[in-house]
Amino acid sequence: MVISNKIAPILHGSSAIRKLFEEGKELAEKVGAENVYDYSLGNPSVPAPDVVRDTIVRLVTDEDPLFIHGYMNNAGYEQVRQAVADNLNERFGASFTVNDIVMTVGACGGMNDILNLFLDPGDEVVVFAPFFGEYSNYVRVAGGQLRAVPAAADGKFGLNLDAFQDYVNEKTKLVIVNNPNNPSGVIYSGQQLDRLQQELEKAEQRIGHPLYVISDEPYRDLVYDDNVLPYMPDHIRNCFIVFSFSKTLSLPGERIGYVAVSNKMDSYEVIREGINVTNRIGSVNAPSLMQLTIKACLNARAAVEVYDRNRRLLYDKLTSLGLECVRPQGAFYLLVKSPIKDYKTFVAKAKEQHILMVDADSFGAPGYVRLAYCVSEDMILRSFPAFERLMQACAGCEKAQ
Amino acid sequence: MVISNKIAPILHGSSAIRKLFEEGKELAEKVGAENVYDYSLGNPSVPAPDVVRDTIVRLVTDEDPLFIHGYMNNAGYEQVRQAVADNLNERFGASFTVNDIVMTVGACGGMNDILNLFLDPGDEVVVFAPFFGEYSNYVRVAGGQLRAVPAAADGKFGLNLDAFQDYVNEKTKLVIVNNPNNPSGVIYSGQQLDRLQQELEKAEQRIGHPLYVISDEPYRDLVYDDNVLPYMPDHIRNCFIVFSFSKTLSLPGERIGYVAVSNKMDSYEVIREGINVTNRIGSVNAPSLMQLTIKACLNARAAVEVYDRNRRLLYDKLTSLGLECVRPQGAFYLLVKSPIKDYKTFVAKAKEQHILMVDADSFGAPGYVRLAYCVSEDMILRSFPAFERLMQACAGCEKAQ
Repeated sequence: MVISNKIAPILHGSSAIRKLFEEGKELAEKVGAENVYDYSLGNPSVPAPDVVRDTIVRLVTDEDPLFIHGYMNNAGYEQVRQAVADNLNERFGASFTVNDIVMTVGACGGMNDILNLFLDPGDEVVVFAPFFGEYSNYVRVAGGQLRAVPAAADGKFGLNLDAFQDYVNEKTKLVIVNNPNNPSGVIYSGQQLDRLQQELEKAEQRIGHPLYVISDEPYRDLVYDDNVLPYMPDHIRNCFIVFSFSKTLSLPGERIGYVAVSNKMDSYEVIREGINVTNRIGSVNAPSLMQLTIKACLNARAAVEVYDRNRRLLYDKLTSLGLECVRPQGAFYLLVKSPIKDYKTFVAKAKEQHILMVDADSFGAPGYVRLAYCVSEDMILRSFPAFERLMQACAGCEKAQ
Repeated sequence: MVISNKIAPILHGSSAIRKLFEEGKELAEKVGAENVYDYSLGNPSVPAPDVVRDTIVRLVTDEDPLFIHGYMNNAGYEQVRQAVADNLNERFGASFTVNDIVMTVGACGGMNDILNLFLDPGDEVVVFAPFFGEYSNYVRVAGGQLRAVPAAADGKFGLNLDAFQDYVNEKTKLVIVNNPNNPSGVIYSGQQLDRLQQELEKAEQRIGHPLYVISDEPYRDLVYDDNVLPYMPDHIRNCFIVFSFSKTLSLPGERIGYVAVSNKMDSYEVIREGINVTNRIGSVNAPSLMQLTIKACLNARAAVEVYDRNRRLLYDKLTSLGLECVRPQGAFYLLVKSPIKDYKTFVAKAKEQHILMVDADSFGAPGYVRLAYCVSEDMILRSFPAFERLMQACAGCEKAQ
């Protein structure tokens, strides 16, 4: 094999996803795109707010192209990082300085920066199931291995802290927490995070070195009802916040985000400097025009109420059909328990009704499927008869426990 | 140490560069920025052509924000990749298809995609000195090790093919060729590349597996006089072209480039698919608005004649002062031999005259300094008396051999 042992198994898995994608395209050609109910992708369906467009036009019209398209400090324009720090301090009573913020190529770039800084071959990273499947690839390419704490049996998908210690050993360097969670839509409470901090301290004593938490928060601003997302550094000592503007401003293709380094963490100076270096090696810097754009849009939001309406519609319908799912508190995903024992058959039967959903196996949640409701309300309404037919088609199958 | 063994030595080196940068800033504050002659950075000094601005305004005004800022195939918009392939085919008589082009986060992102695809821990990558110092960091973070073939003693800085075989062993997977070269400004001829292909075949027979060449070509369109850059796939069987629009369109901050996979290479299918996967894991996709922007600017160029004028001015002056340097054929760097034996003293004495230049040690060219002439013509003219004083200050020192 000419390609690395590191990548070969990932490549194999990717072909399966591509196959699914191709099947979806074929289905749309056969029955018409309007008769396919595609809940598979987490691609924002609400456009960027107008201030994004207006800011871009103003920047390219009024500013020096050498400035807006040029190199800056690898960590990002100082004025942008200062504005991000000020905005976080205002919103969360935090105390970030310009030096704590590194602008990154989306949340993906920020995750890779941290993983590359910490991991040597054989090192381990712990994550709580269910989790975004791509984490295991990020960790693998950085030379490490992801270990997933399975979800508790209560079906609530909180942090399974009772099992945490079993997954931490001398090789563990980092813990990933995704809040709000993809794929469950659950928000981990401040109380759970406080207990995580206790477990981290217990583990650190046992293994003899500090652990660091990556709080991956691309869905931070997609929070529903009266839920509140805890501010991570209030609960976890050694933490990074990884953020992306992909969902908040509906700019997923632009790859713009940041890492905020908590200045309370152990070995703060070397780590802050280190993130600058891994960010430089990974991508030189975050895209310049988009850095300057988000600076003017830090309090803007894509229309979250659209996702909220979708959430209520879909949740109410599916539960009325007898399906079991956690009511999402944030993000734009619904994690649904397969009503039949063989959940792969459930996905296949859904496809027969032209409903595309993702088997949550690769999210560490076997027995569940993920539906992304960042789609049109119209599609959701049109899909209801198909869900009814799906439930009828499952009636004769062996039920899930 | 909490950070990885992989990164720790890089972090140490980066602090040294930061120190130099801080010293430069202090100098500017002390003597005034107009009295500092900064030849240290390769940051384009010619603005992006107007068509870039016009295209951005048109896209954000006329197109659907969900399209221009949204996710696309991880390899990039099909229409952009097709346009890049068509443009290469037209210019070079090539036969690229849409599938051979992967849009990347600049040349840096493209290099990392390829390195991550090929390298397992302990694998090696060969480069010809002098070379862009950051290569060794890219290779290190991907888990491998860079081995540099030293330049031949003739001072011409061609590919040192006589020494090549000594640096290739069973662990070697890739060879990096940077054409036109940073820091020498040399263009490797088609004849040299043909001989490289012969040496590659000889090495492949010996080590028992294929070798792949990464042709890093960010300076492809910065070529002077009647020089012509050879088209790599005409000479090298297993090759990737890594390109960036940073210099061609003066967009270095935007991080937009591509990898072109030669469809003549060994194991073409798996490698082409593999680059898609490592690109997805590294950055999800290249910035979306910039992808669509460069599509409309594939035949546009920043004003290269400005760099050409700088090149002539600086080369003529420095050689008239008795300094030895290769006349650059491309890029915007001048590699100058230190006239005195202790080249670090030469750099220090230049700094006393407020001339900032980079010791080329980290480029694999000890005894040389690099001057980046992507600066204003005015600064070059103002720096001439300082160079005269520098030569006088060096008169009493032990001469270089």
